[in-house]
Amino acid sequence: MTTRVGILGATGAVGQRFIQLLENHEGFELACVTASDESAGKSYGDAAKWRVDTPIPDDVADLIVRETSPEAIPDDVDLLFSSLPSGVAAEVEPGLCEAGYVVSSNSSNDRMAADVPLTIPEINPDHLGLIEVQRDERGWDGALIKNPNCSTITMVPTLAALDEFGLERVHVSTLQAVSGAGYSGVTSMEIIDNAVPHIGGEEEKMESESRKLLGSFDGAELSLHDADVAASCNRIPTLDGHLENVFAETTADPDPDEVRDAMAALPGGDLPSSPDPLIHVFGPEDPDRPQPRMDRMRGDGMQIVAGGVRTTAEGVKYNCLAHNTVRGAAGASVLNGELLAAEGWI
Amino acid sequence: MTTRVGILGATGAVGQRFIQLLENHEGFELACVTASDESAGKSYGDAAKWRVDTPIPDDVADLIVRETSPEAIPDDVDLLFSSLPSGVAAEVEPGLCEAGYVVSSNSSNDRMAADVPLTIPEINPDHLGLIEVQRDERGWDGALIKNPNCSTITMVPTLAALDEFGLERVHVSTLQAVSGAGYSGVTSMEIIDNAVPHIGGEEEKMESESRKLLGSFDGAELSLHDADVAASCNRIPTLDGHLENVFAETTADPDPDEVRDAMAALPGGDLPSSPDPLIHVFGPEDPDRPQPRMDRMRGDGMQIVAGGVRTTAEGVKYNCLAHNTVRGAAGASVLNGELLAAEGWI
Amino acid sequence: MTTRVGILGATGAVGQRFIQLLENHEGFELACVTASDESAGKSYGDAAKWRVDTPIPDDVADLIVRETSPEAIPDDVDLLFSSLPSGVAAEVEPGLCEAGYVVSSNSSNDRMAADVPLTIPEINPDHLGLIEVQRDERGWDGALIKNPNCSTITMVPTLAALDEFGLERVHVSTLQAVSGAGYSGVTSMEIIDNAVPHIGGEEEKMESESRKLLGSFDGAELSLHDADVAASCNRIPTLDGHLENVFAETTADPDPDEVRDAMAALPGGDLPSSPDPLIHVFGPEDPDRPQPRMDRMRGDGMQIVAGGVRTTAEGVKYNCLAHNTVRGAAGASVLNGELLAAEGWI
Amino acid sequence: MTTRVGILGATGAVGQRFIQLLENHEGFELACVTASDESAGKSYGDAAKWRVDTPIPDDVADLIVRETSPEAIPDDVDLLFSSLPSGVAAEVEPGLCEAGYVVSSNSSNDRMAADVPLTIPEINPDHLGLIEVQRDERGWDGALIKNPNCSTITMVPTLAALDEFGLERVHVSTLQAVSGAGYSGVTSMEIIDNAVPHIGGEEEKMESESRKLLGSFDGAELSLHDADVAASCNRIPTLDGHLENVFAETTADPDPDEVRDAMAALPGGDLPSSPDPLIHVFGPEDPDRPQPRMDRMRGDGMQIVAGGVRTTAEGVKYNCLAHNTVRGAAGASVLNGELLAAEGWI
Repeated sequence: MTTRVGILGATGAVGQRFIQLLENHEGFELACVTASDESAGKSYGDAAKWRVDTPIPDDVADLIVRETSPEAIPDDVDLLFSSLPSGVAAEVEPGLCEAGYVVSSNSSNDRMAADVPLTIPEINPDHLGLIEVQRDERGWDGALIKNPNCSTITMVPTLAALDEFGLERVHVSTLQAVSGAGYSGVTSMEIIDNAVPHIGGEEEKMESESRKLLGSFDGAELSLHDADVAASCNRIPTLDGHLENVFAETTADPDPDEVRDAMAALPGGDLPSSPDPLIHVFGPEDPDRPQPRMDRMRGDGMQIVAGGVRTTAEGVKYNCLAHNTVRGAAGASVLNGELLAAEGWI
Repeated sequence: MTTRVGILGATGAVGQRFIQLLENHEGFELACVTASDESAGKSYGDAAKWRVDTPIPDDVADLIVRETSPEAIPDDVDLLFSSLPSGVAAEVEPGLCEAGYVVSSNSSNDRMAADVPLTIPEINPDHLGLIEVQRDERGWDGALIKNPNCSTITMVPTLAALDEFGLERVHVSTLQAVSGAGYSGVTSMEIIDNAVPHIGGEEEKMESESRKLLGSFDGAELSLHDADVAASCNRIPTLDGHLENVFAETTADPDPDEVRDAMAALPGGDLPSSPDPLIHVFGPEDPDRPQPRMDRMRGDGMQIVAGGVRTTAEGVKYNCLAHNTVRGAAGASVLNGELLAAEGWI
Repeated sequence: MTTRVGILGATGAVGQRFIQLLENHEGFELACVTASDESAGKSYGDAAKWRVDTPIPDDVADLIVRETSPEAIPDDVDLLFSSLPSGVAAEVEPGLCEAGYVVSSNSSNDRMAADVPLTIPEINPDHLGLIEVQRDERGWDGALIKNPNCSTITMVPTLAALDEFGLERVHVSTLQAVSGAGYSGVTSMEIIDNAVPHIGGEEEKMESESRKLLGSFDGAELSLHDADVAASCNRIPTLDGHLENVFAETTADPDPDEVRDAMAALPGGDLPSSPDPLIHVFGPEDPDRPQPRMDRMRGDGMQIVAGGVRTTAEGVKYNCLAHNTVRGAAGASVLNGELLAAEGWI
Repeated sequence: MTTRVGILGATGAVGQRFIQLLENHEGFELACVTASDESAGKSYGDAAKWRVDTPIPDDVADLIVRETSPEAIPDDVDLLFSSLPSGVAAEVEPGLCEAGYVVSSNSSNDRMAADVPLTIPEINPDHLGLIEVQRDERGWDGALIKNPNCSTITMVPTLAALDEFGLERVHVSTLQAVSGAGYSGVTSMEIIDNAVPHIGGEEEKMESESRKLLGSFDGAELSLHDADVAASCNRIPTLDGHLENVFAETTADPDPDEVRDAMAALPGGDLPSSPDPLIHVFGPEDPDRPQPRMDRMRGDGMQIVAGGVRTTAEGVKYNCLAHNTVRGAAGASVLNGELLAAEGWI
């Protein structure tokens, strides 16, 4: 039995990924797309400049784009995926939740709010319990659930695997693809034969979101994990796939084999979009993997890929990678939506 | 009064940079070039596929390429710059030193040998004193001096500035240009729309060479600096210029202004190829600098460029950059040669 | 009923594409792989550095690599696909044909030989009749069939569509991907932020092969088409997909609609790997297509893509594109093999 | 004795090139910069995001940005260089000319107007005579002079060399750098691992401007050259330097040596920014030149570079290259300004 879903901000780069991921989805039926007022009223095919490498589905091309407001969205839609600019999202998401819609949002606003679940289904599904707290405090019939930033979600599953050894501190450097900034976010003059060691707000997101995702929820309150996390974020000339170098320290001092085993042991789950397993781990015979172009599409773009596990004086260093617009954005929201449906929140 | 110099392995990428840097040099006159036996006997213009973006000097094009052996090199040449493959260098450099030549080498062999000076003129010129030890032990009339690896030299001047605060540990991630692997080292299929998180032997070089460069020499013996250094090295699609993210911890906890001041205060020195100052430091108003394409040619490619100084829970993080084939290779050897001449070793 | 096939030169870039295309093929079963003597005797998984973006099939990984000689190939193999270097191919292909094997070869040797069919199944399937001539002249039990060069096959189907208007002359400029030169054929230093207006022998291939493909076969002899063809070939920084600008003149002066209709009307055929239709044509509403990254995988990489049809003073200009290692190499040989099987030559 | 000059639209990519080229200019002193109303009143250093790879001159950084109107420009300024968007230029340039200013403009508006000189100093300096016609017709005290589009100026000098052989027709394909579209004109998502076979309006500019530049002026009227010119324009992933493949036909059939000699024989002129000679010609020993990254800075970016001259059935084919933002934009306007000064129009 399928759930009718909508996409808020459906014409953008992430919005187009949502449409691609929802095509032929076994549990969700795309019933509504919204965009800015200029696009409202047009057919989606006319409103969107389609740039994904698979053709636009005919039935989606014919959908009439609606305004992003409670009035404009049909009552029989139960779940909304949001890829709105964070400023716009901050304005409209609360109203939609109050109107009774469940919103699975990729937008960065409110991710750190105390009563908003920030979830990765394979890592902290129990945090969905925060929805009760949220509804009590805000008097909403609906709910607001967030997925983390693309650079955060690439790293956190590997940190979760290390947590059994007593995770204490993390230094991470990112090599991020241009698609993370949206279709027009990085100009070619800025990045060809170059790299940019600054992405506004990105480091703060990685440092705070990681501790929330790894934190514990006691049924009433969520406490952040107490590990120190420091990030340096860089943009490089790759199209898709964020590669990250992690330096991690734990109380127990696992050797590389133990670290690889712990990462490989994390289950992928059994939701429609779940990867199996959660993390593909390259061994010492492949020291130069993962690589963005070679590994970003593993598990249809939903798998985390790790490798290059080596020891340091006080811990371990390793590399991890994920597809930033699939696992790191649209796919993460869809997977959260699947979890919400599976656990009966919708 | 000028010194007659030669270049060992003059036809390769670094060899061509040597020729470019020695053109119109105020203190050195290029008198001899050597290469593999196939090239020996040809004119340099015929033997080398010239790929530097300035024309090949006419007088160099006419030089006859010699074999790389003591017999083949004129006696009136006093200083030899070496950019030989490390395997070849390990075989021929000792014989040349024994024959009385002073060799300023960019090759990676013997950099960590206890009696071989590994020097950056602005950082540890006193280590040249090891030449006495070397001559006593090896009975050489000549001498062998090394410059560090390109990824090491990009970072060490900034670490030297931090040492006044009591440097304890360093985590560094590198974003390295393809020219670091030589003209044919990285194929286009390997790196376009991609990044490779592994460069063979590079991390070990950064971790060991840094501690030797920052170590102390008591006139008889050199002791390594006791800071822990852990590196993750990556190749990205840039042509020239290595960008590095550094996480550093010190006993004193300097704030970003103190760190920037310490870096900016390091003198460039007064050798012919010295930059002024050693490090160009970008302030908080330019958080996205340094960038490889924008900053690699500062100080004619001899200056270190730093920026993005921010604090972390236990220390500071910042970014640094240098031109890997100028400051990181040929230019480093030339600067060492200039120091040898200035201090009367030649 | 399936045909047992082998791949000559299976470890290279094109060889790996052959393996990818033959996985789960409905008519062909991969029974044998050959490579250089150093690889012979190893398992394919150990001998090949797998670089295709789909995993290596398990059964192929376990195949033992054989030498490229008649003795080494099992008798029950009926069809051999060749991606040998042309020098090696020129030496071994005749011996294999003499030994009775039918060889569908992508190697450039002998493409213009008077008794060797150079075929594109959708364009000149009748040229296979040359096999009779070839067998008479050479006394072979087997046969040698060639497919054209990647830059030729991208253009010829569009020229075939124009031939009904009386094709007289062609000027073509190519923007070719680096994969056309093999995995290590173009270094990153050569092509990043650059383009190279020369590919050795490429222009001659386009100019001669086009006229043979469009030529007529009277059952005994093949006469070349008399159109003038002049090509300028360039390498640019793209991974896969050759884009070509064509200026064509015909006796009749068709308008753009007629040209688009003629291109779109060419049937794709009904072989297992046939695209449908042969050419995807973009209309005036998409003036910026085809583009390599957006269009190279149409029809699983087997479709020709055309667009930008405009008139000039004496004719028309348009752009065409094809995937150079699929449609332009391995896929072309496989399609020729499928034609040989369908027409009973095997 | 120096001329005081101004730059209209000084904050953009071409505007910054103007500033770079005018620094230390022997005949021109930069006295005024204008930009959009938002920038007016700020110091240039604050108004412009400086992106050129040489530091911004201190005295320019301190200039106060003015509005782009006759009232705002000092009377003692005699020459204005324009890099305004063509729409804005069409509105303001006539008023400035009426107010007595001589405007050397890179903007595309009015290039084909019958009474507006479109000039390349080395090719058609006599076309400046159109200024008299222009002043008669429009009653201006000032004057409006244009330089051609960057893709046109790359090719026309080579066509001028061929004209002695009776130029009849030209087919040209361009491989154009992203900087030609301005700093933000081409997104990285659009061009990495890709090429775009369409640049709006570019082909029409090449086809019409070429015939005007090669046309003849009888003192009263300008007649276009009657050669047919057809262009196909492509954007590729290079930063600077347009590479073009030319197929040309002439009445006389010169061999490659004659063509190379004719190109090499064109004088560079003796203006401050003149290259010497106008065209650097590569011979058959360098078939793979010119290349954008290797050759764009010849003659400080003001030289045209040609090579790869080969014969075709009805003519010749060759490649040419120029730096699109120096020789193809700001440098072209500056050179026109130098010609105006040398010939006493200022």
